[in-house]
Amino acid sequence: MNPDTSRIIETTDLATALKCRVAACRDRDRTHLGPMFILTDNNVEKLVLPALMPWVESHNVKIITIEPGEKNKNLQTLTHIWESLSNEGATRSSLLINLGGGVVTDIGGFAAATFKRGIRYVNIPTTVLGAVDAAVGGKTAIDFNGLKNEIGAFHQPEAVVISPLPLRTLPPDQTASGFAEIVKTSLISSKEFYHRCLRADIDNPEELFPLIVEAVRFKERVTDEDPHEKGLRKILNFGHTAGHAFETWMMRRGTPISHGEAVANGILVALILSHTQLGLPSAEIHTYATNILKPYFRGVPILCKDYPDLLDIMGHDKKNHTAGDIRFVLLNEIGIPGTDISIPAKEIEAALDIYRDLL
Amino acid sequence: MNPDTSRIIETTDLATALKCRVAACRDRDRTHLGPMFILTDNNVEKLVLPALMPWVESHNVKIITIEPGEKNKNLQTLTHIWESLSNEGATRSSLLINLGGGVVTDIGGFAAATFKRGIRYVNIPTTVLGAVDAAVGGKTAIDFNGLKNEIGAFHQPEAVVISPLPLRTLPPDQTASGFAEIVKTSLISSKEFYHRCLRADIDNPEELFPLIVEAVRFKERVTDEDPHEKGLRKILNFGHTAGHAFETWMMRRGTPISHGEAVANGILVALILSHTQLGLPSAEIHTYATNILKPYFRGVPILCKDYPDLLDIMGHDKKNHTAGDIRFVLLNEIGIPGTDISIPAKEIEAALDIYRDLL
Repeated sequence: MNPDTSRIIETTDLATALKCRVAACRDRDRTHLGPMFILTDNNVEKLVLPALMPWVESHNVKIITIEPGEKNKNLQTLTHIWESLSNEGATRSSLLINLGGGVVTDIGGFAAATFKRGIRYVNIPTTVLGAVDAAVGGKTAIDFNGLKNEIGAFHQPEAVVISPLPLRTLPPDQTASGFAEIVKTSLISSKEFYHRCLRADIDNPEELFPLIVEAVRFKERVTDEDPHEKGLRKILNFGHTAGHAFETWMMRRGTPISHGEAVANGILVALILSHTQLGLPSAEIHTYATNILKPYFRGVPILCKDYPDLLDIMGHDKKNHTAGDIRFVLLNEIGIPGTDISIPAKEIEAALDIYRDLL
Repeated sequence: MNPDTSRIIETTDLATALKCRVAACRDRDRTHLGPMFILTDNNVEKLVLPALMPWVESHNVKIITIEPGEKNKNLQTLTHIWESLSNEGATRSSLLINLGGGVVTDIGGFAAATFKRGIRYVNIPTTVLGAVDAAVGGKTAIDFNGLKNEIGAFHQPEAVVISPLPLRTLPPDQTASGFAEIVKTSLISSKEFYHRCLRADIDNPEELFPLIVEAVRFKERVTDEDPHEKGLRKILNFGHTAGHAFETWMMRRGTPISHGEAVANGILVALILSHTQLGLPSAEIHTYATNILKPYFRGVPILCKDYPDLLDIMGHDKKNHTAGDIRFVLLNEIGIPGTDISIPAKEIEAALDIYRDLL
């Protein structure tokens, strides 16, 4: 991607980055820029917002606060955001700045997509997972009727500001969860990127931050080429067919695991299938299990008797068009993914056997 | 517009038109077409839906019904539509068919824009106003927080099916309301179209229907060139600056008038300003007042003391970017509009004086 057209801004100075971006909005559209708003949650408001307060106050930016957590990514919270924008004088020319994790950027992006038929927004992710997963690509949504992301829209952000500052406020398990998505991105991107992930000390922000930026830039390239998930963008689901099944299955058992942990385990299943179906060298399976999965993530405690439930969940995944047909993204080589690869149930079960042996 | 790429289907046979369109959806996307739904209101369900029932039953199409009227174009009705789609098994490949007036096509279009981040939809307008105003162009919305169309999205329909059948079920005042938008379209489109409007007997469906189709096709050309209302599309607001002010003012007085009646009167104000500001021949003002306004519409009973209120409403119209700056779409000649023409308050007041004299 041409750096001039990239929406990604990498910075250690949030306020200056925002200032430049706001100037760019004004410039390009040659219109009046309406009142500006920051959407954030109660936690981020305490931890990160203070660094922005001088800018907020000098620009008369209004703050909208929501409760943190996926359970609040719902219609009630969305209604609160819409009402706040409407009552506080937001116009078609307003700018909404989403400062937070995936919940804030998903719901704030959807509020921006729909307020007065669409206003501009900027994402400032404050979690690693939020940066590499939710903040880029224009997918916005709320959960509805018990279903994740059931209501939403595609609406591209004006900019995504990636800064190491808010990420330093995170607990280590959240960092690991985001790291799973970085590793996934590296595996579908290039050997060189993946090898840097293998060597990284993720507890060291100096080492982690460049990997975040590279993952975000790769995702931007993919989603710019295929904004509405017609084809190429499907590669981003690598590790997610089994990963989502693990996530849902553990939630139903009453022992939920993080999205990142589920994906880290789903990647191992996808690597096993890449070996059995496409001939990826088996050494790659072991390298991943030894260097990525085991140091940072717990395994998912499945037994043979759980296979039917897991396959049933995979078959109902909305990303498979035809019910019962289970499709995977697999690797021909590291960095060379193939999509929509339909795998028979008995091959998936064989891969789950190998997965259990490796744990 | 190339007829091959037009989304407008003119037909007397709704079921066959739908059948062809559904086949086209399947064909073009080469994907499975998910469950189909019809959204309609209680009135249209009784008057128009029976004609479609054989098709509905043979294709297992599910019906979602809402209460009629603008007061139901709200979040509660939208939630009902989302829940119905979700509970009845709608998928990303589903098709929603909006059968009704502007309320049904606005809210149904917005439900389609946001369900699973966007599904396909077809509009079958059942009112003249709905056909020429709401059904084409991809503007979808609900009213929210006391404001019209406060929440919405741009989402183009797959097709707009224009049929004389449902339009025959309308009371005459609704026909006149739609005729105002047809005349507006003709005035910004061409002398030839406008002269056909002047000669038409709008109580005769045989004469009215071709004018509806021409207005819809013109609107499609304009909105395809400028889907997000950045420039050209503004010409469609001809007659609406004063028209919206009349509509709001009459509502505040407790004596609401229809949108079409308000626009018909707003057009007269716009023609007067076109004469005083741009030199449009004054004969055009009289032709319009004699042949269009007086036979079909009542005047708006404004007095001099009401001018400040009317100008205040015009200055707050969301289509004027800068508060207080009142802009009009005016005609250089019939068929040659200019947009964003800023008019000083005293010139608007002078035009309102002439307007009152002409009534």
